[in-house]
Amino acid sequence: MNSKNENLAMLCDFYEFTMGNGYLKNNLHNKNVYFDVFFRNIPDDGGFAIAAGLQQVIEYIEDLHFNEEDIEYFRSKNLFSDDFIDYLKNFHFTGDIYAVPEGTCIFPREPIMTIKAPAIEAQILETFVLLALNHQSLIATKANRIVRAAQGRAVLEFGSRRAQGADGAVKGARAAYIGGCAGTACTLTDELYGVPAGGTMAHAWVQMFDSEYEAFKAYCEIYPHNAVLLVDTYNTLKSGVPNAIRVFKEMLVPQGITNFAIRLDSGDISYLSKQARKMLDDAGLTTCKIVASNALDEHLIRDLIMQGAQVDTFGVGERMITSKSAPVFGGVYKLVAVEDEQGNIIPKIKLSENTAKITNPHFKKVYRLYDNETGKAIADEICLHDEVIDNTKPHVIFDPMATWKQKTLTNFTVRELQVPIFKNGKRVYDSPSIDKIRDYCKREVNSLWDEVKRFENPHRYYVDLSQKLWDIKKELCVANSMK
Amino acid sequence: MNSKNENLAMLCDFYEFTMGNGYLKNNLHNKNVYFDVFFRNIPDDGGFAIAAGLQQVIEYIEDLHFNEEDIEYFRSKNLFSDDFIDYLKNFHFTGDIYAVPEGTCIFPREPIMTIKAPAIEAQILETFVLLALNHQSLIATKANRIVRAAQGRAVLEFGSRRAQGADGAVKGARAAYIGGCAGTACTLTDELYGVPAGGTMAHAWVQMFDSEYEAFKAYCEIYPHNAVLLVDTYNTLKSGVPNAIRVFKEMLVPQGITNFAIRLDSGDISYLSKQARKMLDDAGLTTCKIVASNALDEHLIRDLIMQGAQVDTFGVGERMITSKSAPVFGGVYKLVAVEDEQGNIIPKIKLSENTAKITNPHFKKVYRLYDNETGKAIADEICLHDEVIDNTKPHVIFDPMATWKQKTLTNFTVRELQVPIFKNGKRVYDSPSIDKIRDYCKREVNSLWDEVKRFENPHRYYVDLSQKLWDIKKELCVANSMK
Repeated sequence: MNSKNENLAMLCDFYEFTMGNGYLKNNLHNKNVYFDVFFRNIPDDGGFAIAAGLQQVIEYIEDLHFNEEDIEYFRSKNLFSDDFIDYLKNFHFTGDIYAVPEGTCIFPREPIMTIKAPAIEAQILETFVLLALNHQSLIATKANRIVRAAQGRAVLEFGSRRAQGADGAVKGARAAYIGGCAGTACTLTDELYGVPAGGTMAHAWVQMFDSEYEAFKAYCEIYPHNAVLLVDTYNTLKSGVPNAIRVFKEMLVPQGITNFAIRLDSGDISYLSKQARKMLDDAGLTTCKIVASNALDEHLIRDLIMQGAQVDTFGVGERMITSKSAPVFGGVYKLVAVEDEQGNIIPKIKLSENTAKITNPHFKKVYRLYDNETGKAIADEICLHDEVIDNTKPHVIFDPMATWKQKTLTNFTVRELQVPIFKNGKRVYDSPSIDKIRDYCKREVNSLWDEVKRFENPHRYYVDLSQKLWDIKKELCVANSMK
Repeated sequence: MNSKNENLAMLCDFYEFTMGNGYLKNNLHNKNVYFDVFFRNIPDDGGFAIAAGLQQVIEYIEDLHFNEEDIEYFRSKNLFSDDFIDYLKNFHFTGDIYAVPEGTCIFPREPIMTIKAPAIEAQILETFVLLALNHQSLIATKANRIVRAAQGRAVLEFGSRRAQGADGAVKGARAAYIGGCAGTACTLTDELYGVPAGGTMAHAWVQMFDSEYEAFKAYCEIYPHNAVLLVDTYNTLKSGVPNAIRVFKEMLVPQGITNFAIRLDSGDISYLSKQARKMLDDAGLTTCKIVASNALDEHLIRDLIMQGAQVDTFGVGERMITSKSAPVFGGVYKLVAVEDEQGNIIPKIKLSENTAKITNPHFKKVYRLYDNETGKAIADEICLHDEVIDNTKPHVIFDPMATWKQKTLTNFTVRELQVPIFKNGKRVYDSPSIDKIRDYCKREVNSLWDEVKRFENPHRYYVDLSQKLWDIKKELCVANSMK
């Protein structure tokens, strides 16, 4: 994000290029391969995560190329063949991509994106695809937790200054909005993505004037309809709130303006907000809102509400923009199949001594099954790419880690989660507007049972394998463990 | 970091613009103000932090402008005066900046950057300056902990895919190198900043061939001098290591090549590395190195070494690139002084009920005092901007939180920490090369006592105030608490 060459094609682990060069040398580069993106653990031990970042993946792939500087860079390494360097010069993506739309509730081990492409291409995409999906899914998931804790009160994203880099701030604020935030302090996120940005004053504004009263007065003179006065520069209850009340009554109430607010940015928010609420109400300013912003997260917000804190809007900074309590979303990118010369899809597996870490092989589809009576999601089922679930017949699902745990479904609806994004290198999907994504996310979260949504010990949502997929997986485990 | 307008001038909290517009309206915009950047807590309860990100701040300020799209954006908000919009059109930075060089060891409450500029300018800089310094200082500090834990073994940065956004990866890898990493997997960080990038193969490479043996063989054929074979795709000790040994002996040893390695990426690194070492040695491959990479951090690396793990190089991913255990660096940007019409500097303070959070007022300097006998840093002293410490006389320092704790220094050297970066809007500082910064950082860390560097309960390094500054602070506390 600066004036220098920052071609995102180069935001790629070096080994993708050493492997790519090797595939070319071994004539494997045009072999079609299938990679799945999936994750294993839900941040904060939550019951679900929210997918985000697809729009950035699409933009990245559409722009994917290597420029002259990049080519020079590779040449200078004396590691890559001329053939490979020529290949990179003409590089563009030619494969297929399927993915769950942004805002979808997602669960461990199911493919949230599937890439079918010639080997080198699929490899070159890996780093950025993971980075974009991991980052934004992390923040959307965290933001949604915080928004749910606020129980209908607005949550604003205030974290740019503590974000991990420029993109951390800008795309983080985008993801936070998808997760349900009402807006952001980040101006660039508004300009680029239409996420509503807002903000009024910092302590410096108050300090720039001879007194707090004059600072508040000057502000209300310029922004009578946007007055959120920061009341903790000197002393919240002795100075800040009284000065705010005085200025609201002298300057805004006479004009019939009632949509003003105060902001608490330090101290005991529970106590201060209750005292401030009483002072405001006693002064007749019952419409005055209270904004609070001081190292908040879902747990503190829930506690504040339980304590009866009088807060209407929460501004959340570092603990949301970095997902402080769980700052990593562990999406991985695993080879699940290759095509042979005849175009047959050969499933591939990655074993592990930890059975939960063994990958699900093959080109697959994910279906979500909904109970027709409640409209709630019951389970996801991972199937082979050409399997169809017939919802006119009873359908048996089973736990892949404990196959004797079975359930027969009747009266259910089936929805395929992944949608086509690229077909033969051409984009076949339009990202919805950010507000549509946000609304969809809200509906998605509403389709989950409360038990899946609670913070402590949430119910583990079922992600099952079809019988056919399970059989293939078992077979491959046996075959490969003997290699 | 994509093709759209991503002017970093707009990566700015919205309230900077509402305040800026207000300063202009109140004729405060040309008032010179002084802001300090400082932090209060060291990540991971460490004994010190490392400053990084200055080069990105410099690039940002040199490029700082608002383009036509940005101007349109502001106009569309119907919140800003025409005067302010005209002001932004012609905006460029005209102030002075002082800062500690990248790689400097820094401590809580001391100014690591000081901005003197007209009020609007100083305000507009706030968000990005904090973001850049917070992010890179965070990662440099974390990387340095991990590098110190490795006790001379190489540490490589492998985290791009788990970084919080593109900049998180690219600038994070830059900061990790400053903190002492030997290189990165991120190709773009090499291209942009000259941080050596490397990498060999992922599991997909192994899976693409009919057998692990063939995969290893194909790799060594292409990269005989860069062979790091990933041995855990199927079974590390039964398949991976034996196949690697076979290929090394068949293909590389006969050529006289001895600088090959294996990489362990899962399982019990301590056990596997010891077993692998024995197998390699028994096969006569005593020069073969072992690289380990599996959710490592400073504590795991220290434990591995204590257990006698046979690891020569550590690849560290998500726990370094996000500073997972402490993902926020809490730098703040506080008004410390304003100039009156006559150019007198009027100190300003921000009070807090928590006395440790009361800001240090005034335009200041920081000196580091070194013991001449050991060469080690004894304390930092924050002084008024025109104070000079005379090291030819005994010098008394005292703890600002406990003024009765005093110490008299003799035989010491004084070094000013901040250097001029901008003067009247012109850059007067050249960032050193990344390798020079990294070397300087190493010397900086060496100048600290071991007690400051330990992970558990490190000694609190002294950051003291001069008597003059202390007197002014006390005076302002009394005056402002009565406002």
